[in-house]
Amino acid sequence: MPISRIAIGRTEEATHPDALKAALAEFISTLIFVFAGSGSGVAFSKVTGGGANTPTGLIAAAIAHAFGLFVAVSVGANISGGHVNPAVTFGVFVGGNITLLRGILYWVAQLLGSVVACLLLKFITGGMEIGAFSLSDGVGVGNALVLEIVMTFGLVYTVYATAVDPKKGSLGTIAPIAIGFIVGANILVGGAFDGAAMNPAVSFGPAVVSWTWNNHWVYWVGPLIGGGLAGLIYEFFFINQTHEPLPQ
Amino acid sequence: MPISRIAIGRTEEATHPDALKAALAEFISTLIFVFAGSGSGVAFSKVTGGGANTPTGLIAAAIAHAFGLFVAVSVGANISGGHVNPAVTFGVFVGGNITLLRGILYWVAQLLGSVVACLLLKFITGGMEIGAFSLSDGVGVGNALVLEIVMTFGLVYTVYATAVDPKKGSLGTIAPIAIGFIVGANILVGGAFDGAAMNPAVSFGPAVVSWTWNNHWVYWVGPLIGGGLAGLIYEFFFINQTHEPLPQ
Amino acid sequence: MPISRIAIGRTEEATHPDALKAALAEFISTLIFVFAGSGSGVAFSKVTGGGANTPTGLIAAAIAHAFGLFVAVSVGANISGGHVNPAVTFGVFVGGNITLLRGILYWVAQLLGSVVACLLLKFITGGMEIGAFSLSDGVGVGNALVLEIVMTFGLVYTVYATAVDPKKGSLGTIAPIAIGFIVGANILVGGAFDGAAMNPAVSFGPAVVSWTWNNHWVYWVGPLIGGGLAGLIYEFFFINQTHEPLPQ
Amino acid sequence: MPISRIAIGRTEEATHPDALKAALAEFISTLIFVFAGSGSGVAFSKVTGGGANTPTGLIAAAIAHAFGLFVAVSVGANISGGHVNPAVTFGVFVGGNITLLRGILYWVAQLLGSVVACLLLKFITGGMEIGAFSLSDGVGVGNALVLEIVMTFGLVYTVYATAVDPKKGSLGTIAPIAIGFIVGANILVGGAFDGAAMNPAVSFGPAVVSWTWNNHWVYWVGPLIGGGLAGLIYEFFFINQTHEPLPQ
Repeated sequence: MPISRIAIGRTEEATHPDALKAALAEFISTLIFVFAGSGSGVAFSKVTGGGANTPTGLIAAAIAHAFGLFVAVSVGANISGGHVNPAVTFGVFVGGNITLLRGILYWVAQLLGSVVACLLLKFITGGMEIGAFSLSDGVGVGNALVLEIVMTFGLVYTVYATAVDPKKGSLGTIAPIAIGFIVGANILVGGAFDGAAMNPAVSFGPAVVSWTWNNHWVYWVGPLIGGGLAGLIYEFFFINQTHEPLPQ
Repeated sequence: MPISRIAIGRTEEATHPDALKAALAEFISTLIFVFAGSGSGVAFSKVTGGGANTPTGLIAAAIAHAFGLFVAVSVGANISGGHVNPAVTFGVFVGGNITLLRGILYWVAQLLGSVVACLLLKFITGGMEIGAFSLSDGVGVGNALVLEIVMTFGLVYTVYATAVDPKKGSLGTIAPIAIGFIVGANILVGGAFDGAAMNPAVSFGPAVVSWTWNNHWVYWVGPLIGGGLAGLIYEFFFINQTHEPLPQ
Repeated sequence: MPISRIAIGRTEEATHPDALKAALAEFISTLIFVFAGSGSGVAFSKVTGGGANTPTGLIAAAIAHAFGLFVAVSVGANISGGHVNPAVTFGVFVGGNITLLRGILYWVAQLLGSVVACLLLKFITGGMEIGAFSLSDGVGVGNALVLEIVMTFGLVYTVYATAVDPKKGSLGTIAPIAIGFIVGANILVGGAFDGAAMNPAVSFGPAVVSWTWNNHWVYWVGPLIGGGLAGLIYEFFFINQTHEPLPQ
Repeated sequence: MPISRIAIGRTEEATHPDALKAALAEFISTLIFVFAGSGSGVAFSKVTGGGANTPTGLIAAAIAHAFGLFVAVSVGANISGGHVNPAVTFGVFVGGNITLLRGILYWVAQLLGSVVACLLLKFITGGMEIGAFSLSDGVGVGNALVLEIVMTFGLVYTVYATAVDPKKGSLGTIAPIAIGFIVGANILVGGAFDGAAMNPAVSFGPAVVSWTWNNHWVYWVGPLIGGGLAGLIYEFFFINQTHEPLPQ
């Protein structure tokens, strides 16, 4: 089931096993996504001998994330809604479309999936470094924060318009492609400045495995503000129909 | 609702708030699209240290615009029709599918969205130049004008065949992908000659922010002629059923 | 209407104006496709100063053709079936799904569309060479012939499975994407050996405009054999239900 | 018909000719896929004069495999289910969704399709080497084995979620795209380390034609473990409804 009010309402009413299944689905989807996304960066280092970023590197990252996220959202859609991203879960939460408890369960599953993906990458590469996200030269914390806000706003707005909105119609069929591809497009911008996470889970796994926490908070605060804003704005202006609070 | 006669007829009959919502949707969609599109060019400059255009640069621009426009059209489709482009709005207008007043409202929203996207790019890059569109060496104004006409004809013809045409059927499901991807394909041609705007809003934001107006009119006249021609030809040959004028 | 037996049967029964409309649609679709496809090669020459082919050049050509053909098939689908290719028209003809007269009309429209696209490219580039298809060093006529046969077999087999087959079901929705993308994939193979036309119209326009006819017949005979084989095999093994001959 | 329990149940009940048709469809689909996938590697060698792998080479391989597999799955979907991969067939078998006999028939067809594709590549390139899969420097057999397991798990999990799961809904429409694109994303990771087969047929054809069998077993054992695990896990956790054994 897609990430819709109705669908999520129904799962909320469901028994505990369904919530655990949804968490398992988020774990697997995030693992698949981060494995492809972070892995493409490690493969770039492998093939270039650790060379500096290039336009080709940005394209490889954009395609790996776009294709990987499209698939990760698809395979989770009918089980968990296919969030694959704490900022999406937060944006869905502030719009009143998921309960706090289930949201926390999703966050834990997403973060675990990302860490396991990075550990697997560490193993299969024979111990290569899984580089944490960082700011490029000349990019300040304030710049990166706004960058993450703008890009994640676009991502969560896309989630709302194509998957959450009850009036989505046939857009629902291509929603996972749109959600994956907005991330690919944004990486071609932000990848040159702060790595373009748009997703705290994506930055968390590499941070844990490389134990690098410089400016890590930027990759949480930015996406959560951007995702939250998108949820509030889309709900208020484009859905704006009262719906009963979900049972906790 | 997709950009269809019926859908737009219905919104026209709707109250003022709906028109403002549609304008807000156009503003946000254009912001998302121009942020990805122009931003990919700025990122190319960042990574190459301001290097000359290369085939890889064209590919990055093509993917960023194709993915970004696909998403921008998708997220706006059910609210405003997802024009994201004054030339599309004009092509839809000359075919009799949107009123003049609403069209002007869309234009203002699209131009504002583009300017705000470029201002955001200026900020997040720490003040990098947001380059205006320009003609390559050996490309005259007449060449660029015809180039913009041909490319925008293809774009607006695609909008008509996949989204406006009442007989579109299941094409409607993939319409936003087709609309985005024809722009991506055309950038791989025109990007080497005049930047390949196909969209006055796309060229307007960078022109304002960099305050560069050389040959700027080409990026208005070309797309409007191409888009207008596509609307007239598609309506006349392939829709050709009289429909009542829309209420102003 | 998609390229289906029923749809084409219905257009055949239609009056003459419908056949002319279909030819106009083939003309415009082929123009859009060849403009993007051949144009991407000219843009590569422009940006590299006429440099030799590279893997990046193959990728640019693959994306331009994949995206361009996907759109060209989409925008023609409901009017002419979206053949955009004499080999597809021939494959559809040998399977008994289009009449000879209409097929010839389509061929003329496709060839004209390609020539006009190349003339436009010539103009907008300020007179650059529109390079004809040719065999790479070490590739003989026999090799290229088999290459074109294999690649076009895959293309027309895809047309049959996703668009002609009455049992296609929901595949019909993504048929134009599949048809475009198999050409993109094959260009990443054949582009290095004979340019990878898979379509006599695609090779005809550049041959006329550059007036270069070396081995031109390969780009007709190969695609027609491959497309014809695909039509016969798919009809015989996977459709294999008798259908009445179409009225001439 | 998509790879669904019901669909496959129905074909199993069908007469022998249907099983042979399905095998023919697997043969043709695998031929199309391996021709594009392996062919893109040969084309890279052609254009670079046998140069070392680069990020651009990974991107070309990713796009060729993603687009080629998407199409190969599409064109086979309604006839054989579009497995195109012994690991997918195995994953579908361990989940109880195909009989052993039909599975063996599919394997033979897939392996033959791959060998014929490589022989055709050998011919059309005038005898160029069709390179077998191999481990990069610094990558041990254990690393490659885990890499193939993780990547193929993601692939077969995607097959289950989008095509086998009876609750797939509108995901079924985009299933072939998702199945192709997860392979494209994973090649951007694994291509730098072990070539990223995820499919014993993909590695078998080049091994036969180049008669190179170093570590070939890795490309069987890894995908079969990964595919089998995905089938078991998806069936157990997300489908978990008993279904009668299929008639042999």
